[in-house]
Amino acid sequence: MSDSQKPYIGIDLGGTNIGAGIVTTEGKLLADDKVKTKAQNGSDTVIKRITKVIEKIVDQANLKMDDIAGIGIGAPGAINIKDGVVMEAVNLRWNNYPLAKILSKETHLPVILDNDVNVGTWGEFKIGGGKNTHNMLGIFIGTGIGGGLILHNHLYYGHHMTAGEIGHTLVKADGSLGRRTLENLASRTSIAQVLAKLIQSNHASIISKLTEGDLTKIRSRVIGEAFKQNDKLTKIVIGDAAKYVGIAIANTVTLLSLPHVVLGGGLTEALGEPWVKMVHEHYENHVFPHGHECNIVASQLGDHAGVIGAGLLAHHRLTEGHKI
Amino acid sequence: MSDSQKPYIGIDLGGTNIGAGIVTTEGKLLADDKVKTKAQNGSDTVIKRITKVIEKIVDQANLKMDDIAGIGIGAPGAINIKDGVVMEAVNLRWNNYPLAKILSKETHLPVILDNDVNVGTWGEFKIGGGKNTHNMLGIFIGTGIGGGLILHNHLYYGHHMTAGEIGHTLVKADGSLGRRTLENLASRTSIAQVLAKLIQSNHASIISKLTEGDLTKIRSRVIGEAFKQNDKLTKIVIGDAAKYVGIAIANTVTLLSLPHVVLGGGLTEALGEPWVKMVHEHYENHVFPHGHECNIVASQLGDHAGVIGAGLLAHHRLTEGHKI
Repeated sequence: MSDSQKPYIGIDLGGTNIGAGIVTTEGKLLADDKVKTKAQNGSDTVIKRITKVIEKIVDQANLKMDDIAGIGIGAPGAINIKDGVVMEAVNLRWNNYPLAKILSKETHLPVILDNDVNVGTWGEFKIGGGKNTHNMLGIFIGTGIGGGLILHNHLYYGHHMTAGEIGHTLVKADGSLGRRTLENLASRTSIAQVLAKLIQSNHASIISKLTEGDLTKIRSRVIGEAFKQNDKLTKIVIGDAAKYVGIAIANTVTLLSLPHVVLGGGLTEALGEPWVKMVHEHYENHVFPHGHECNIVASQLGDHAGVIGAGLLAHHRLTEGHKI
Repeated sequence: MSDSQKPYIGIDLGGTNIGAGIVTTEGKLLADDKVKTKAQNGSDTVIKRITKVIEKIVDQANLKMDDIAGIGIGAPGAINIKDGVVMEAVNLRWNNYPLAKILSKETHLPVILDNDVNVGTWGEFKIGGGKNTHNMLGIFIGTGIGGGLILHNHLYYGHHMTAGEIGHTLVKADGSLGRRTLENLASRTSIAQVLAKLIQSNHASIISKLTEGDLTKIRSRVIGEAFKQNDKLTKIVIGDAAKYVGIAIANTVTLLSLPHVVLGGGLTEALGEPWVKMVHEHYENHVFPHGHECNIVASQLGDHAGVIGAGLLAHHRLTEGHKI
């Protein structure tokens, strides 16, 4: 295999699972797997689990480590992208952990590290829902709400490398305490809390049945199912969330005059196109200038956005020497 | 005079006044003047008034038109920056008016046109409150609220060239109709309306005296005077406005991880440093990540930001061939 065609390994490192894949320079997955992170057992365990899953997928694809050009990792929390350090990741229980260096030593491969949301945004930008644009926002709605920005074909990091945090923008200045940022109004966590509260105060919903009465189990899948079955309560709560997401996107487009937004994450996958359409309608009602056209489309890579994006970003940063 | 040292003419074209200045490549004003726009008399009148004031300041500086390298204009409304066309400017009563072409024909000089707020932001960035930064937001609070963005040392225009419109971002999703965007909550116009309403419903304020009872006359100067005299009602209303401005800046910094913000416009000038400090406190309470450092400083060019910025932007665009 010629050096310029060598595939990359993409790692989507989460608090619960480690996703891993072998990603060609075109973004094709040659093999992939998912294992538990077991962060509670300490960083050595996590590193071992990463190297093991790498070995497994390399073998699965009938390759050797020599055939791999490099590794890209997307990790949650605050990342020092230049130095490859996880500065703070509550889910992983890590502080100032030099992940790129350690993994590079273990694998004898170059390793690049970035924020999980940036990596997912990069994947969608290169071969997914944003592949025909030069400027876009990626917004991922699940347990939390994360965002990544592509400006002039590059990930935009900003001065402190923390750009894109749309989930932490405030859309309801005088809302009740803790219900003012987008994440606190429209994440799956927030939606589940609102639904549970309403059901507990005797609002009828099919969700009681879908969760077998355990309202701590309102996950994206359950919300999606209730939504598809036209559950009235779910429709109202989701309608509200779509409004706040639409407003936050409108604010971002008003500020940055973006032509394109990719909507991803577990909640988006569970709700599908009707959700994307609702968000787009609220966007249109709030953007300035009125009539500012912007495509708002669903993620095309779904659950694989992180792994594919990490592999493609490793390719980009290791070969094109992109300055951060 | 060698060609590379030739000064530029900067024009700040407003609905009421035309500001004009001769601006050196270092941003020094060699001469300046201000005349009424008289937009109601039609576009030919406006062009004549612009060429007249240009002739006057060139003479005032003991120069000839041959000594001028080019002209930069900042105009309100929707601008086609590439083609130098005012697409829509309600205050000027212009639609699709090819201002740059017409003025270039009249003066035999190259003319560049940009949005008035971008031009002011550029001035502050080059030699004013933002001269030591590479990335900043300029936010100008007066009759309305406008914003301009500098990213990586360039004005950021966005896909439809409308970027920076922080005044039209929504910070109060469920506010009463018409009181949801930053401009509708914190512009001088909005503040004056709120004050007038409160005074009419018998809240005591020194403003009644300052305006001699004519509450249609609550301009920035009056608000600034009442604020400095510790007028209780004014303090409350301004405190509220500072909150919304601080939140909108926090949202912008959360999205773009900016290190610097320059606060300008008539209201900022009238209220001074205490206002900038209040805005900064609200910024700090709302930005993510918490503790994200950002300088928020007052405009240094004040009323001249537009004229100086227009001259400096003409120099930049005509000599460095900056792509838009």
